[in-house]
Amino acid sequence: MKACVFHGPGQSAWEDVPDPDVKDPTDVVVRVDTVTICGTDLHILKGDVPEVSPGTVLGHEAVGEIVEIGADVRTVQPGDRVLVSCITACGRCRFCREAAYGQCLGGGGWILGRHVDGTQAEYVRVPFADLSVHPLPAGVANEDAVLLADVFPTAYEVGVLNGRLRPGDTVAVVGAGPVGLAAIATAHLFAPERIIAVDVAPARLEAARELGAEAVADAREAPEQLVADLTGGLGADVVVEAVGLPETFEMCTRMVRPGGRVANVGVHGRPVTLHLEELWIRDLTITTGLVDTRCTPTLLRMAAAGRLPTSRLVTHTFPLERIEEAYEVFGHAAETGALKVVLGGPRHEVVPVPAA
Amino acid sequence: MKACVFHGPGQSAWEDVPDPDVKDPTDVVVRVDTVTICGTDLHILKGDVPEVSPGTVLGHEAVGEIVEIGADVRTVQPGDRVLVSCITACGRCRFCREAAYGQCLGGGGWILGRHVDGTQAEYVRVPFADLSVHPLPAGVANEDAVLLADVFPTAYEVGVLNGRLRPGDTVAVVGAGPVGLAAIATAHLFAPERIIAVDVAPARLEAARELGAEAVADAREAPEQLVADLTGGLGADVVVEAVGLPETFEMCTRMVRPGGRVANVGVHGRPVTLHLEELWIRDLTITTGLVDTRCTPTLLRMAAAGRLPTSRLVTHTFPLERIEEAYEVFGHAAETGALKVVLGGPRHEVVPVPAA
Amino acid sequence: MKACVFHGPGQSAWEDVPDPDVKDPTDVVVRVDTVTICGTDLHILKGDVPEVSPGTVLGHEAVGEIVEIGADVRTVQPGDRVLVSCITACGRCRFCREAAYGQCLGGGGWILGRHVDGTQAEYVRVPFADLSVHPLPAGVANEDAVLLADVFPTAYEVGVLNGRLRPGDTVAVVGAGPVGLAAIATAHLFAPERIIAVDVAPARLEAARELGAEAVADAREAPEQLVADLTGGLGADVVVEAVGLPETFEMCTRMVRPGGRVANVGVHGRPVTLHLEELWIRDLTITTGLVDTRCTPTLLRMAAAGRLPTSRLVTHTFPLERIEEAYEVFGHAAETGALKVVLGGPRHEVVPVPAA
Amino acid sequence: MKACVFHGPGQSAWEDVPDPDVKDPTDVVVRVDTVTICGTDLHILKGDVPEVSPGTVLGHEAVGEIVEIGADVRTVQPGDRVLVSCITACGRCRFCREAAYGQCLGGGGWILGRHVDGTQAEYVRVPFADLSVHPLPAGVANEDAVLLADVFPTAYEVGVLNGRLRPGDTVAVVGAGPVGLAAIATAHLFAPERIIAVDVAPARLEAARELGAEAVADAREAPEQLVADLTGGLGADVVVEAVGLPETFEMCTRMVRPGGRVANVGVHGRPVTLHLEELWIRDLTITTGLVDTRCTPTLLRMAAAGRLPTSRLVTHTFPLERIEEAYEVFGHAAETGALKVVLGGPRHEVVPVPAA
Repeated sequence: MKACVFHGPGQSAWEDVPDPDVKDPTDVVVRVDTVTICGTDLHILKGDVPEVSPGTVLGHEAVGEIVEIGADVRTVQPGDRVLVSCITACGRCRFCREAAYGQCLGGGGWILGRHVDGTQAEYVRVPFADLSVHPLPAGVANEDAVLLADVFPTAYEVGVLNGRLRPGDTVAVVGAGPVGLAAIATAHLFAPERIIAVDVAPARLEAARELGAEAVADAREAPEQLVADLTGGLGADVVVEAVGLPETFEMCTRMVRPGGRVANVGVHGRPVTLHLEELWIRDLTITTGLVDTRCTPTLLRMAAAGRLPTSRLVTHTFPLERIEEAYEVFGHAAETGALKVVLGGPRHEVVPVPAA
Repeated sequence: MKACVFHGPGQSAWEDVPDPDVKDPTDVVVRVDTVTICGTDLHILKGDVPEVSPGTVLGHEAVGEIVEIGADVRTVQPGDRVLVSCITACGRCRFCREAAYGQCLGGGGWILGRHVDGTQAEYVRVPFADLSVHPLPAGVANEDAVLLADVFPTAYEVGVLNGRLRPGDTVAVVGAGPVGLAAIATAHLFAPERIIAVDVAPARLEAARELGAEAVADAREAPEQLVADLTGGLGADVVVEAVGLPETFEMCTRMVRPGGRVANVGVHGRPVTLHLEELWIRDLTITTGLVDTRCTPTLLRMAAAGRLPTSRLVTHTFPLERIEEAYEVFGHAAETGALKVVLGGPRHEVVPVPAA
Repeated sequence: MKACVFHGPGQSAWEDVPDPDVKDPTDVVVRVDTVTICGTDLHILKGDVPEVSPGTVLGHEAVGEIVEIGADVRTVQPGDRVLVSCITACGRCRFCREAAYGQCLGGGGWILGRHVDGTQAEYVRVPFADLSVHPLPAGVANEDAVLLADVFPTAYEVGVLNGRLRPGDTVAVVGAGPVGLAAIATAHLFAPERIIAVDVAPARLEAARELGAEAVADAREAPEQLVADLTGGLGADVVVEAVGLPETFEMCTRMVRPGGRVANVGVHGRPVTLHLEELWIRDLTITTGLVDTRCTPTLLRMAAAGRLPTSRLVTHTFPLERIEEAYEVFGHAAETGALKVVLGGPRHEVVPVPAA
Repeated sequence: MKACVFHGPGQSAWEDVPDPDVKDPTDVVVRVDTVTICGTDLHILKGDVPEVSPGTVLGHEAVGEIVEIGADVRTVQPGDRVLVSCITACGRCRFCREAAYGQCLGGGGWILGRHVDGTQAEYVRVPFADLSVHPLPAGVANEDAVLLADVFPTAYEVGVLNGRLRPGDTVAVVGAGPVGLAAIATAHLFAPERIIAVDVAPARLEAARELGAEAVADAREAPEQLVADLTGGLGADVVVEAVGLPETFEMCTRMVRPGGRVANVGVHGRPVTLHLEELWIRDLTITTGLVDTRCTPTLLRMAAAGRLPTSRLVTHTFPLERIEEAYEVFGHAAETGALKVVLGGPRHEVVPVPAA
């Protein structure tokens, strides 16, 4: 088959590799219909993720059809249309038993496109399939569903749920890239009083506004002041960091009210400064996290009900074999305006949701 | 009356000042029987807390008897023996309505010995008395009760409860001074599997052991390794920072397991480095906080039942008028071995708890 | 002034009574502009609430303007437009400290129109005003705000919050009277997958549909089966009982999934049968409750943002002096189709919300 | 092998049956060393549990050694000493993903000795072994560990955790049989202020006292009054029902304070009356539940640390082959004073816990 193979920093190719097979009785093989590229894939390509060996097939997000199952797979069948989650779960270790699948100690966690061959290929082997793929409800198109492999659950679990957002809260989302926009979209599930989006790119702020952010602040123009003005000087109840830079993280800790929550979603490459000399007294809760995808079934139901604006995040689509071009577009988002780039198309017809 | 008055950095005196009166209808005046000195008082004396004006009476912890009440005080009477909490609460602002009294916006919070005259005096005016003093149960001696004005609720609320300690957890307490020891003592209320104490002073580690820390590590000898060894390499479920230095805070973030909690109790004077480049993926929760004293009634009941080892923390006692000497002893803890220094004595006889 | 006075079972009159005054330093007197009638008022009139003495002014819901304040009132001023909550809170007892105001032990709780004169009058004295009235945000009309005195916080706190509704849940609301409809409206704050309404009155089911209930079932036609069909046979995650009859309560316990929650909001006059012989094994949580109105500030913000469909519940309006007629209409809801009946009008001009 | 086989109401025998084998790749076979008899086994024998077919081997609690494993078992090996949990978990269904193993939809739940052959035998096949057996820590004797198969996790999860017990609470436990006593023992993990035990049997009340119940009330002498007296008239924060009769359940609802929790653990055979005409207004939470055994690893650690007084519940021991006699003794507890009856002995030497 063809696959997008990593060959060391700066090098990858869409090339021939052997077809994957079922190795363990809990494996499935999925024929990939739709994939997307994650910011993490760019980091791998740059050489920032040294645990990825040359020769690995990239990608950890996909939608496709099951073509083969192991002897102990119980919940899916060949022919099932499924979402391949970015997180694989052994289901047996202490963390999986708490649904903290991202921290799996039994061979799962984030392994696709990192420790084992990933999804940017015509076929992919998915270990521990019962806990790692999700049957797709009727009525969810592939290009919507694929955003539920990583970006939406990450934004929802690590941003919105970790931030313990409550109806009536003010939430600030710092960074309006794909994850930040998905945080804005899923924040609506808790009916905040208002959402304040912060970014430097006008197009991203415009997308934030379309997704329901009521106040939109340019990161270069003292957004802390806007937050203060809108909250009687107290600060936001919840602040979501969706950039991954020291300066944006520090901004978040200045934007939050006493007793508020800062939910870090950004992937950081450097240490940040935490001003405990001011914050020790302010009753803050700061959380970090890798997604567990425990909420993926819920998000799939919400998507099937038409309540997740997934398609607003998709700016470019390509056939799967043009993935190298897609990487170019996605890797130069400042110029191309790319948010999410989706590859492959809906080979399966989308079944419309029956009227209620 | 006599009081311990702050006169600017490095200067204080036990001297004559006017007697306090009821000013607002929710005030009481308390005759002070027992007080203690807090580490924060030392910071004020050094000049580290600039909002304290010269002329202010120091102190925010006391036990005494109510001698006068305002017209709208409903829950206590003259003659009642009470604990004066370090936190005063208006009871009406948005934070007080959530029992976040430490963040009171209506004139309360930590004001005694900071914004208004404090407790290191023969008499003290306590604003918003109904929510700021606590009637003492029979059977709790003054010198035990006074530790429930600040150190025990701080350790319990900001350390143990913020850390969401659960039965069977492993908890590490970094810093075995008074607050750290109180965290060890109150951690037992949630039946952890084990408590690991970290400090550099052998006497403090010995006190930690007596209070039930099962593993005791010297901070200079890689305590992270001990924690790792005792937890199968994962780290502690909960780590309490009870020092207030960058290096101890960082140590805490290295000691905690994926999905664990770091509860900062220490008062910090400098920024710390948060290694988000490693921690972003580890599902951590980091909390900060000023005590609310919302749990003081519970702790008083536990003390009355003989279940809080308060007296183990008291290393020195003095008559109230020798408070300057007490400051000397407390301020040189490394030499004197002081933990908590209690002033004044039980003018009221302690009523023994009736047999069950 | 004029007031609606209870004179024993079946007897009430709109008649002259003395004007109220400030008695305690925490009291205010409010000039009543808008009131409504609660189902509980009908119970009082029938004689079902024996603690209400003849001579008591009825009513526990109002919007009006403060005309006099006691010496210790701190958060409102004469001239302020306020919502008078159905619950009065001393703010000092153990329950008020936990925001369980409905259980107040210090003289508050549900007292208006029950233990002290109520709001169906030209003026009303409100005890403990700082915790018992809420300043109205600009842009909320009186006839909307008055529904936040009781029916909306009851539905939200006792139904939706006690039911721990989560995004993606299926919620069934049994009873589509005013409280049930408010439960449907506030359930949307947690983005359920679907809301199923159950009643016997077609008009109420139609109102439920307009408020966003997606599935509407007639209580006489096996609504349990509809719930089962829509949930793969498991049952609803959350069921809200908003009727108060044994048969509807039992229906709720048959509609809920294993591990689900039944939140009772209905006021019951008779015991119910709990089928523990079947339910002991099903991991149910059943809650009861009187409203605390702790969420009223949040609901007011949501109403100011135009996110609570309060006006849909108002079917009839009258001038205040025609309250006897309003009782007739409200007391014969089956014939008149009455949901909420609002008296008095917007003497104060509604200030529009400034554009964002 | 020999096993205790059910032959219809009133009939069972210790007789020859075929040895069990691994059928599915997630099965293990355990050589049974120690078992116990549960009250539910008596119900089965009486014919109260019609889903149990004649020919089924009884029993759902055991300690033993793994002798055979299926191809997809990952966490245990032949030779491992394990606890066989009363609950079996597929680990893949929606309930197992939430650790609600007792409600497993994938073929697990309470199946041993009910839907498949159970543990009262020389060998037992355990399906879904990775999630259904627990390796035993060194230092836990078989006769202690076997109480962690059902009675301790049931008391802890369904009683103490469902009751949301907090330090300083007053908890009443109605019924001081094995489960009630285990509830008393595990309630200590949350440091309640006091535990009140209610039963009619003096020996059981004496056991309750030994396990740390401070107040012990005879169920025939108005225990509600004792609870009221000890709680200032308010009632207990948490009440655990551990009997399973209508009158004891009703007693629990009269003993609980406003805002308190009633955790039903008892297995009920008849409906109960819930006095909603009084309770609707009291902010109660009532829970029911089958154990999930999600806390078994925690309880095993606590047992290894010597912190669970398991042995106090064991009143009689027998060799496995004398199980018919053991049923007689356990089935006539009123005369024999039996609490838990343990069969089989420690064939494996207990390894002492190394000194810390």
